[in-house]
This record gives sequence, C-alpha cells and structure tokens, in this order.
Amino acid sequence: MVVQVASPETCVAISGVGLIGGSIAAAIRVRSPGCHIIGVGRSAARLEEAVRRGLLDEYRSGELSENSLPAHALGIACQPVNQIVPAAEALLRAGCGVVTDAGSVKDPICRVFANQPRFVGAHPIAGSEQNGFEAADSELFAGRVCVITPVDTVTEPSKSEREANSLRVAKFWASLGMRVVEMLPPEHDRILALTSHLPHVLASVAAGCVTPEMLPLTGTGFRDTTRIAAGSAAVWTSILSDNAEHCIDAIQQAEMRLAEFRKALQSQNLEALTALWDAGASLRRMLDA
Amino acid sequence: MVVQVASPETCVAISGVGLIGGSIAAAIRVRSPGCHIIGVGRSAARLEEAVRRGLLDEYRSGELSENSLPAHALGIACQPVNQIVPAAEALLRAGCGVVTDAGSVKDPICRVFANQPRFVGAHPIAGSEQNGFEAADSELFAGRVCVITPVDTVTEPSKSEREANSLRVAKFWASLGMRVVEMLPPEHDRILALTSHLPHVLASVAAGCVTPEMLPLTGTGFRDTTRIAAGSAAVWTSILSDNAEHCIDAIQQAEMRLAEFRKALQSQNLEALTALWDAGASLRRMLDA
Repeated sequence: MVVQVASPETCVAISGVGLIGGSIAAAIRVRSPGCHIIGVGRSAARLEEAVRRGLLDEYRSGELSENSLPAHALGIACQPVNQIVPAAEALLRAGCGVVTDAGSVKDPICRVFANQPRFVGAHPIAGSEQNGFEAADSELFAGRVCVITPVDTVTEPSKSEREANSLRVAKFWASLGMRVVEMLPPEHDRILALTSHLPHVLASVAAGCVTPEMLPLTGTGFRDTTRIAAGSAAVWTSILSDNAEHCIDAIQQAEMRLAEFRKALQSQNLEALTALWDAGASLRRMLDA
Repeated sequence: MVVQVASPETCVAISGVGLIGGSIAAAIRVRSPGCHIIGVGRSAARLEEAVRRGLLDEYRSGELSENSLPAHALGIACQPVNQIVPAAEALLRAGCGVVTDAGSVKDPICRVFANQPRFVGAHPIAGSEQNGFEAADSELFAGRVCVITPVDTVTEPSKSEREANSLRVAKFWASLGMRVVEMLPPEHDRILALTSHLPHVLASVAAGCVTPEMLPLTGTGFRDTTRIAAGSAAVWTSILSDNAEHCIDAIQQAEMRLAEFRKALQSQNLEALTALWDAGASLRRMLDA
C-alpha cells in the first residue's frame, strides 16, 4: 500500500521527544504547519526546551491523567522499544483517538494490543546514531519506507474500525514523505532482524575487534562499516532483546557465513572465497543499481 | 615518521592503471605538475585511453624489456596484491631506480624483496569500492595514512641505500597529501586484518544474509555497513588469501564476539548485551571525537 496524500491530522501527541520524536515534530512543522503538536515525557525541563526550539506547541510531563488529551489527537509512542507498550497504553487512556508507534520491533508490541483497534503499530525505517531532539531532522523520513503492521482481524466486529484507523495512520506516515508498506508483525520482525538488527551487531563486532591504538590505521571502509555501532546501548539492547528469536536466527546465519570465509581461507580455496564474496557483492550492488 | 615536503620525483612509472594507479596519477598531476608519468600495463587500448584523459604522458604495454625505463624513475606497482611481486620485479628489471607498491598486504611481498634494497613496500590506506581509472580521484589519498614497510637491515652493506630509498618513497607518498607511518610488514598485516580486512568480511556477511526482496526494508544503516561489500572479488579474495593467517585470527575473534551476542540474547542477559554493545560503541565514538 502506498499512500501519497496530505495528512488530515490537526493534533498529534508525541510521547518520547528524542531524536525520532523530535524529527517527527520537525517534519510535521515543515509539511503540515497547521497541526498542533503536544509533547509528552518525563522531564519538564527537556520538554520546555523543545517548546522553546519551536518543535512543540505545548507539553505534558509526568503521569498522563485520563482523558487529558483531545479525542481527535493522533498519539505516537517514540520510546525505545521496551518502553513503547506502557507509553502507548498511557496515550490511549489519556484519550487519543488512535495511537501508533515508531518501534523497530513489532510483534511483542502488537500482541499486547491485539484486541485494541485504536492501536496501529508502525516502523518508520529511518534513524541516526545520534540522540536527543537537538539532532532532530525534518527530512529524516523523506523518501524512506514506513512499515505499518495492523493486526489481522477477519471476523471481529471492529474490523471496519481497524481498517479506518490503519488508513489514518498510513496517511500520517505518508504525510512525512514516507512510502508506506503493510506487513504482519512477525514477518516484519523476521526481515528487520536481517536487514537492520544483524548489520548493527556486525558493525559492533567489527568495532569491538579493534583497539584504540589501531585507529590511525583505519580507512573510510572501517568508518562506514562501523558508523551504526556508535548508537545508544539502551536503544540497541532493547531492540535486540525484544526481537531475540529472529536475531538469534540471523546471528546463526552470520556465524555460518563467517565460518565459511574462515574455512575457505584455511584451505586456501579461492573458488569458495570468490563465491562467498560475490554473494554479498551482487546483493549490495542491487542497492545502487 | 611524518614527512611533509614536496616530492622531488621527476618521473614515475605506474604499473597497473586502475582506480588506485589512476588516482595516484591524478594526484601527481594536481600536486607535482612537472612530473612525467609513464603507465605500464597489459592493454594498450586502456592505456591509450588513460593518456587521452590526461592521466598519463606515455605508456608501455605488454612485457617490459630490460632497461626500458629511466633509472631516475620511481616505479609503483598498483596491481591487486597477488600480482604485485611480478609487476615490481618487472619494474626493477626495466631499470626503475626505486620501486614501491600500493598493496594492502605487506609481508608476503616484502619477504620476496628482503635482499633487494631498491624495493620499499607501501600501503596507502585509501580506496573505494569502484574500479577502473575512470573513477580516479586526485584527492583519494589526501589526509590519509600511508604505511611504509622497509625491511629492517641492521648490518647488511646496503643499509644506507635502504634508508635513502625509504626516505625517497616516504617523501613521494607524503607529496600526495598522506601522513606516512613506518612499520614492520608482519605488524602491518596483523593490524590491517582487524582494521580493514575483517570489516570487509563482516560487510560481505551482512550483505550475504539479505535477499533481494528484502532490500526495500533496508535503511541507511544497512547501506553504510555494506558499502564496501560491493568491491571487486578479484581484489578482495587476493587480499584475504594473501593475509590468510592474520585474517583467520581476526575472523575467529569476530566469531567469538558474535557467539557472545547470541548467547546473551539466548539467556536474555541484558547486562552482557550492554557490555558487548558498549565495547564497540566506545571504540567507534573515539573515531569521531
């Protein structure tokens, strides 16, 4: 599903105003200037600063009380994945008509809301190794893919409500310049383990094998390959552990390939080495084709 | 050793005019416009084209005959590492006073020339996943490190000749804008296995675990981490197999770390996961500090 229409949202409540939440606010400012943006979080001082910078119109810090947010507001939970469920629950309790999120793992979250048609999970595939709304970028999402993962409900009475809410959430992410794709949560998690979570682990391994005194002998290859290893430990341990099952499979696949490289070198089997290299190279070249 | 003086070279003979050889020619054109550049290679048509583009002043294709190059010329062998020894031998036989190379592996090459004071091995740490002199970049080397690996000769009569030749080669690489560092060949190979060769293997593994239909769900992290996996199979199988011993050690180190990530996930040991992540993250952050 690709939706390329303007967002009809007049009010959004962003819970967790860090790099992602701040970038969503910045993108809304640029693309839907009439939309009212409420920030939700723990630290009044930080939210105050985000208001001062013009990212938010107002904020709520601390516990959200029942029906304290407008019913027409779209809630967006932007915490690290292991904090999204309570944040989304709080947005729903506070009265947001529909709630979505920006978590990189979907199944553990969407299972919790299997019977809640007002929640529609999403994963905008965009990010940065930076942290905090100071690094907010209104173009972070432009041209990128957002996966939405509505729970499949063939028979339940709320089917049409779910469909309407999915369409609303899809339109919202599309309004930030994203290409919206719909998938089932476990399928999303299986693929992202290979396209994102494993590359982060491998980048971390590459960086972890080097010691500080070797750094002068690194080139642009090392720099690029390990860039994402500088990300936040809180964010990445949360993603990896919440998607543990698929990440373990992905790591095992990588362990096998790495062992094949080693064995090809141990036996000086250049044909096997070339085949291993070409498998990765031909895939990677498709990305630039 | 850091040398930051202009090159006194008046003539260089570049054997293997691909991306690296072509970029050396381009850098000389910009930084030492008076220097005469002779290209050496197999294909007359390709070398003709490099002359047409202004990268070379003249060329020699096919077998180099004895004393066919000027004695004052500096020879530079720019082939993939497994073709450097015969190329450097040919340059020496053809009469180049001093010969250096641009290979990413040093010990197997420098061992061959242990008794040849006219050869001084070098590794300019710069590159690209592109191929051919069409991608030549006069700034490819600027600001980067070049390791030179003169063979240590404490007693032999040619010690002072070796030292003079090392200084000449160091000045040449410095004249391309590089910071020149001196190391023993095996030490170079051990460190580069970790700072360059292993990251290439890990990038290749990351790319090889993904299938074409997953590509729409890749982000900038995947793109950056796997960029170097698109490099030439001929170049990389040659580097890995010529540095097999150190690469096997490096891969084993990576296999251990990867297994630690997997075990931390299997036991949901978040503390271990955080420690593993932080080891890579803190090293990587030093590079941007």
